Amino acid sequence: MTQTTAAIIGGGVIGGGWAARFLLMGWDVRVFDPDPHAQTKIGEVLDAARLALPSLYDTALPDEGRLSFHDTMSDAVAGAVWVQESVPERVELKRKVYRALHDDVGPSAIIASSTSGFTPTDLQSSAARPEQIIVAHPFVPVYLLPLVEVVGSPKNAPETLDRAHEILSDIGMYPLRVRHEIPAHMADRFLEAVWREALWLVNDGIATTGEIDQAICMGFGLRWAQKGLFETYRIGGGPGGMRHFLNQFGPTLSLDWTKLMDTPEWTETLVDKIASQSDAQSGAKSIRDLEAERDKNLVGILRALKAEGQAAGVHLVAHDRALTARNGLPTNFDQIPDIAQPILTVDRAVPTDWTDYNGHMNEAKYLQAFGDATDRLMVIVGCDADYVASGGSYFTVETHIRHSGEVRAGAKITITTQVLDGAGKRMQLFHFMHSGDRLLATAEHMLLHVSLETRRASVPPGHIAMKLGAIAAAHAALAHPDGMGRAIGDAR
Amino acid sequence: MTQTTAAIIGGGVIGGGWAARFLLMGWDVRVFDPDPHAQTKIGEVLDAARLALPSLYDTALPDEGRLSFHDTMSDAVAGAVWVQESVPERVELKRKVYRALHDDVGPSAIIASSTSGFTPTDLQSSAARPEQIIVAHPFVPVYLLPLVEVVGSPKNAPETLDRAHEILSDIGMYPLRVRHEIPAHMADRFLEAVWREALWLVNDGIATTGEIDQAICMGFGLRWAQKGLFETYRIGGGPGGMRHFLNQFGPTLSLDWTKLMDTPEWTETLVDKIASQSDAQSGAKSIRDLEAERDKNLVGILRALKAEGQAAGVHLVAHDRALTARNGLPTNFDQIPDIAQPILTVDRAVPTDWTDYNGHMNEAKYLQAFGDATDRLMVIVGCDADYVASGGSYFTVETHIRHSGEVRAGAKITITTQVLDGAGKRMQLFHFMHSGDRLLATAEHMLLHVSLETRRASVPPGHIAMKLGAIAAAHAALAHPDGMGRAIGDAR
Repeated sequence: MTQTTAAIIGGGVIGGGWAARFLLMGWDVRVFDPDPHAQTKIGEVLDAARLALPSLYDTALPDEGRLSFHDTMSDAVAGAVWVQESVPERVELKRKVYRALHDDVGPSAIIASSTSGFTPTDLQSSAARPEQIIVAHPFVPVYLLPLVEVVGSPKNAPETLDRAHEILSDIGMYPLRVRHEIPAHMADRFLEAVWREALWLVNDGIATTGEIDQAICMGFGLRWAQKGLFETYRIGGGPGGMRHFLNQFGPTLSLDWTKLMDTPEWTETLVDKIASQSDAQSGAKSIRDLEAERDKNLVGILRALKAEGQAAGVHLVAHDRALTARNGLPTNFDQIPDIAQPILTVDRAVPTDWTDYNGHMNEAKYLQAFGDATDRLMVIVGCDADYVASGGSYFTVETHIRHSGEVRAGAKITITTQVLDGAGKRMQLFHFMHSGDRLLATAEHMLLHVSLETRRASVPPGHIAMKLGAIAAAHAALAHPDGMGRAIGDAR
Repeated sequence: MTQTTAAIIGGGVIGGGWAARFLLMGWDVRVFDPDPHAQTKIGEVLDAARLALPSLYDTALPDEGRLSFHDTMSDAVAGAVWVQESVPERVELKRKVYRALHDDVGPSAIIASSTSGFTPTDLQSSAARPEQIIVAHPFVPVYLLPLVEVVGSPKNAPETLDRAHEILSDIGMYPLRVRHEIPAHMADRFLEAVWREALWLVNDGIATTGEIDQAICMGFGLRWAQKGLFETYRIGGGPGGMRHFLNQFGPTLSLDWTKLMDTPEWTETLVDKIASQSDAQSGAKSIRDLEAERDKNLVGILRALKAEGQAAGVHLVAHDRALTARNGLPTNFDQIPDIAQPILTVDRAVPTDWTDYNGHMNEAKYLQAFGDATDRLMVIVGCDADYVASGGSYFTVETHIRHSGEVRAGAKITITTQVLDGAGKRMQLFHFMHSGDRLLATAEHMLLHVSLETRRASVPPGHIAMKLGAIAAAHAALAHPDGMGRAIGDAR
């Protein structure tokens, strides 16, 4: 990735999240925030993001960019191609920021606002170059959730919005172009609707904050992590689909099922009621603990969706692939950098959901990483998704793992692979897993080529045999790995 | 579990989901539905549930109960302790069902309605025994989502609601007691609020159904699978917590951010617009395919939350533990049924998220299951969570796996464990994994007892050494397992 520069105007939870996302995706980040605690606050967000964001990927992220803090906005925006404004939600304050930036920011830079409520037209009204101001509204935690609503006004050129789309995609976000400017864009209108209804339920004593949260997490919240409102209802309509569902559900619109537009009076009593119920529900844990829980949960959920290739997982799979290509891991035989050496087959961080009660990476995850290394070697010799779809594959028949070191969540690991044998139906591999220079484990595997129709061993086609044979022949000159052919207990 | 009987009045997606949940948790299920296709429809729901529900657990579910279809409601409710009514959402029809059941259903049975909208008082109004009618409102898919809203009226004895709570918990649901009767209970009020707002956005051309679904799945839907509205905002408030958030966010209530109470006119044009957008979004897949995707996604998400012990995962962990206890897997030394034989350490189904591109259980999941077997053996010898918290554990240093058969999602597997050595710091285990009589794989492991403080090998305390030694001594009389001490490639 070409090193590029983002300016972050306003730290805090949102600005800090933006800083983390840009930085961890290899951008230089220049921060302006008059709060004397800004560095500490952003540092805390960064610590959380450094653990969580790499956990979403099965390949290493780019090297972090440089982070710097600046005393003036003018200084912060120097050289920035992206300026993200996340100051408090007051339109006059935001306009003032744009006016103050005007002389120092390049005219081709994009100035994006994190505003939840204001439209681009609201924001642009007193700017000398309104065409460079857009809305890019993210969701907390900004470093984990893909969604960012991108909104322009008639004053923005379509190319500006296209470029915003490209940059946001590049840092792993999912830009959703909102077709028309309306207050609160799109997603926050739903959140506001639920919020208003929830306030009524608490206000009227129908439910506590804790009960409302359970009503969400135990039911429709699970649905909405993977299919939205309409697709869920389409499924609910059964074989009759959406039209059937609409005909059944339409009439309920006239029922007294919401209280919404009408909102409870915002009194100190209501604030007390909500705050004290929330204390009873969550007060035993600090905000930091709750954030860490949330991040681990989101990593687990997003990785589950990634494994299924669904919803936000589709998006992550694509971004993972793009990052893998940049990392120089070979994806075919011709990309092997030096056939005489063990081949780099895995380069990644240990995700937060790979550790266990002993505080280190769980043994099954060692084999998951070694399995990924085997998969990459298979792809390199031509046993890729297309080949598997055509009816052939390799199955592991035997595995021997030796552990020599522990590793914790967030650590970077690499696997290099030596081919011991590639004759006939066999593929015998030896993987070395390192964290830096430290050897963590080795794995020796015997695989057999199989027909996926008969599920029996079979000779691979010539193009695979040739590539595998070439690597095996080149690797035959390497020393036998320590531990090769060893049985359990030989080591003692 | 004592075999008990549930009657299902009204099949379809909801009734079929209830039938599946009761049946798979070991209840006999008696169905009445006048639809001539009811058996086929429930059969399809059952097929999906048989794959998905056991995937949530790390222990085998009870043997399925008996499923029967009946020509009359009277016949269906004979002997039922739970009657679940899921007929169409017309209050007069529901009342008619309760009147028709009256003579045949026992007075102590619970009659629960799946109604989304009506209150218990609405339902009870013309019943001779209103005290046995309650609301138990589930969420699709009923066989996977834990939430069920339990609502009573002043006519229900508290003991009736307590008993309902107990029965619903027993079949793996999370009963949420709604304190006061209001139309649409609790969760559906939120869904209705979002629905009404979404209709406006589609009606006004601000967004398509597909864009709205992405706005949900890529953002707040992920948050709500694991923390609800209030806890999410508490975190958003930062160290200032809920009160800080409320003071910031309260004023937005007066803004024009929702259109809610007001609803778009329900015209054929609007129905066409939504139905055709939904076709464009999801029409390439059948409802059956979408359901299967949804179920696999939910299994993955719920298992991720289970691994973190958070949100719906807390609930699943508790239910898994209850089921494990019933399955007769030993949880301590005294529960070993026959110390002279290999010990049953795993008894479970292969979850849907354990398979890979080859269509069978992935190699890493073999080791996950073997690791679970090792964990159970550790617990049996006294290396349980309390012991680990006190600073000791066992770490695996070497593993040798031999695969002899494939297995697919949904298959039942067991693991039995032979202790080869338990002297000094060592614990050498040999696991056999079967599906029925078929041997799928064996695993030989060398573990060392460690101090979690120094992270180095150490001698285990006497109570652990004694139990492990006793099993090793008893197992010394067993034949050496085929494959023990074998190195990779010896087999050929």
